[in-house]
Amino acid sequence: LGLPRLDVSAAAPCRAPLQWEGRWVMYDHSTGRNSRSAVSYDGLKQRIRVLQQNKKHTPCQKFFEYIYLYQSMVMFQIDQKTKDCSKVALTEAWDPYDVPDNSTFEDQYFIGGPSDNVEVQEWSDRKPARQHESWVGVYTVSDCYPVQETYTRNTSVTTSTRFFNLQLGISDPDVFTPPSTCQSARLERMSEC
Amino acid sequence: LGLPRLDVSAAAPCRAPLQWEGRWVMYDHSTGRNSRSAVSYDGLKQRIRVLQQNKKHTPCQKFFEYIYLYQSMVMFQIDQKTKDCSKVALTEAWDPYDVPDNSTFEDQYFIGGPSDNVEVQEWSDRKPARQHESWVGVYTVSDCYPVQETYTRNTSVTTSTRFFNLQLGISDPDVFTPPSTCQSARLERMSEC
Repeated sequence: LGLPRLDVSAAAPCRAPLQWEGRWVMYDHSTGRNSRSAVSYDGLKQRIRVLQQNKKHTPCQKFFEYIYLYQSMVMFQIDQKTKDCSKVALTEAWDPYDVPDNSTFEDQYFIGGPSDNVEVQEWSDRKPARQHESWVGVYTVSDCYPVQETYTRNTSVTTSTRFFNLQLGISDPDVFTPPSTCQSARLERMSEC
Repeated sequence: LGLPRLDVSAAAPCRAPLQWEGRWVMYDHSTGRNSRSAVSYDGLKQRIRVLQQNKKHTPCQKFFEYIYLYQSMVMFQIDQKTKDCSKVALTEAWDPYDVPDNSTFEDQYFIGGPSDNVEVQEWSDRKPARQHESWVGVYTVSDCYPVQETYTRNTSVTTSTRFFNLQLGISDPDVFTPPSTCQSARLERMSEC
């Protein structure tokens, strides 16, 4: 504060870890729903496993496991209780949790109090000819772990995802293997409640 | 991870600092606009000073300073360039940036990577008889600094505020004194562009 700083705006995007486990809260602005999950992220093999976490107070009694396999462009949705399984084609390309090389530096700051905090950088896909960005990512300065990702369409936020309790690596690669009930999977996505 | 923890859900809400300075980004979900400001917060005298920060790429060329004086239930809005001043009555009661005593513990986790992070607690005003909360606050465990506040109405988020670069205390109490142009202030709020 008040001291001259390095010109961080000239800094290059950091390299995010390729494999991690942790949790996220994803807020869907269209439904107003927060979804809490345990997440295993494998950027090497382009796959993500999302295990929705029950909160006692939610009226919803259905919780799913999602296994996204982008190299096969398929997603498995598994009812955590009944093990019912749906196999759904993915339509959007793999989009890793990282800061793309051509990103625009937005800001750098500390989250937390003076004695306990984490320094982060904010990056976006804003371009000079365009007023609004469609993606903003907040990543730690020290090791480039994701902190928050926000996607916008037509100037309205669609999803914000906050990440936490992140650990490097995948402790159990088997989490990306669908259960046997997925061998005869239905092809329609099951509705979340 | 995997280790037994203290039953943090039985923990009492922490006591947030009463005076601090820092920055925030406030996202207004109705307009889709992010507003970045330098903020001085004085919980003792129930006043807040918000200095909007210019970002070169924004099409808007109007930036305001806001001085909220809740003990007088009045807000001054000052055009940073022209010093034009509006004096507007406040209609909502003082709502400090803290965790009220009767709050509901929601979660505790680390933001950041394994080697550099900050531990936070999430609190809300959720009550057993009500499915949805209208306020969620994320505060640091060590010193109870605000990290994020989210307000919801009818299950839709209205504003999310992220705090950063927080420092204890008020370096210059004069920031709460409106400029002389406010002595003959108009009474209508000036429109933001």
